Amino acid sequence: MTKQGRFLVVEGLEGAGKSTAIQTITDWLQQQGVQLVSTREPGGTPLAEQIRSLVKEVQAEHLTPEAELLLMYAARVQLLRNVIEPALARGDWVLADRHDMSSRAYQGGGRQLSSQLIDGIRQAVLGPCRPDLTLYLDIDPAEGLARAQARGELDRIEREQLAFFERTRAVYLAIAAEEPNVVVIDAGQPLAVVQQSILTELDHFWKTTHAALA
Amino acid sequence: MTKQGRFLVVEGLEGAGKSTAIQTITDWLQQQGVQLVSTREPGGTPLAEQIRSLVKEVQAEHLTPEAELLLMYAARVQLLRNVIEPALARGDWVLADRHDMSSRAYQGGGRQLSSQLIDGIRQAVLGPCRPDLTLYLDIDPAEGLARAQARGELDRIEREQLAFFERTRAVYLAIAAEEPNVVVIDAGQPLAVVQQSILTELDHFWKTTHAALA
Repeated sequence: MTKQGRFLVVEGLEGAGKSTAIQTITDWLQQQGVQLVSTREPGGTPLAEQIRSLVKEVQAEHLTPEAELLLMYAARVQLLRNVIEPALARGDWVLADRHDMSSRAYQGGGRQLSSQLIDGIRQAVLGPCRPDLTLYLDIDPAEGLARAQARGELDRIEREQLAFFERTRAVYLAIAAEEPNVVVIDAGQPLAVVQQSILTELDHFWKTTHAALA
Repeated sequence: MTKQGRFLVVEGLEGAGKSTAIQTITDWLQQQGVQLVSTREPGGTPLAEQIRSLVKEVQAEHLTPEAELLLMYAARVQLLRNVIEPALARGDWVLADRHDMSSRAYQGGGRQLSSQLIDGIRQAVLGPCRPDLTLYLDIDPAEGLARAQARGELDRIEREQLAFFERTRAVYLAIAAEEPNVVVIDAGQPLAVVQQSILTELDHFWKTTHAALA
């Protein structure tokens, strides 16, 4: 097995508390002495950050759902090949703010693009690299949007209607129910409870990983 | 049938003489009183032109073949939905400097990406819109590259090795042999002969189109 490090992902709707969760996880992993590479999607490389700007900015021209999907995967494959895969091969851990589950949820659920199209692209471009653990922070979309709005100006995707985020959440939950490496964290709980839930999952993952490596 | 206009494409390797051919075709069609929309790929819309810059510029970060393919189709679907399809629906003609055949040849041949991946994306994002006539200007890659180099600085793709363009040409010719709407023009002939070959094909297409519309 060439892969030595572990690949952790934090997922969730706008306002679910991803940034706080990532800070908590970062602190905890650094206490364990893990060499950690942090990424965000779309973005995380110079080219992928340019693609992020294209996708996020409000522009006069309508960005078609198909182009949005293709841009997300173009950014993702740059990040995978140029950052994530080399880091894991070195033995570093990777902590990602969003990854492939976001496209399945937002473009598949929110934009209602066919899963056939999305799966075809995924299988062709992702390769064998999959997250070892995904923490999905589940939040009621109305509550998440209210938090995101309180933070300031909304980007192009954050301006979508509530129904868009309801569809996105439904796909997130459907994937979480199917895939064993995805853990749902109830992000509607008080912050201290959310943080404790995350640390409990991390500790469990850490012990399982070390048992597997031993 | 909602489509009223006609969709013409000029294809070929760097240095094949596409620009001169497009000028000749534009002049001829305008003489016939055709309302003409001209496009280029990648590009042709504000967003697609931003994607063109990403693809064409020489950057420090390696652009993976998969990301290149996805960016090409992201730009293409923007141009199709926002420019080409509306123009054809209005009854305008569209004259395109490159279209889908370029991705099949450059990314499939030059970059050697699987035709399964390319065809999956094509079928999902192109929709039913296909060129009515494609003029493929066939040139020996060594001769084409010498012409392109004489024009000035080369972009990221034009810096590829000769074998890349040999593979690209082979796919161009294979598609042309299979698809009835693609005509091969020998672009290694003297310019006046090339121009006459193009005008002969156009005249034939014009008469066939008008017979079909009558």
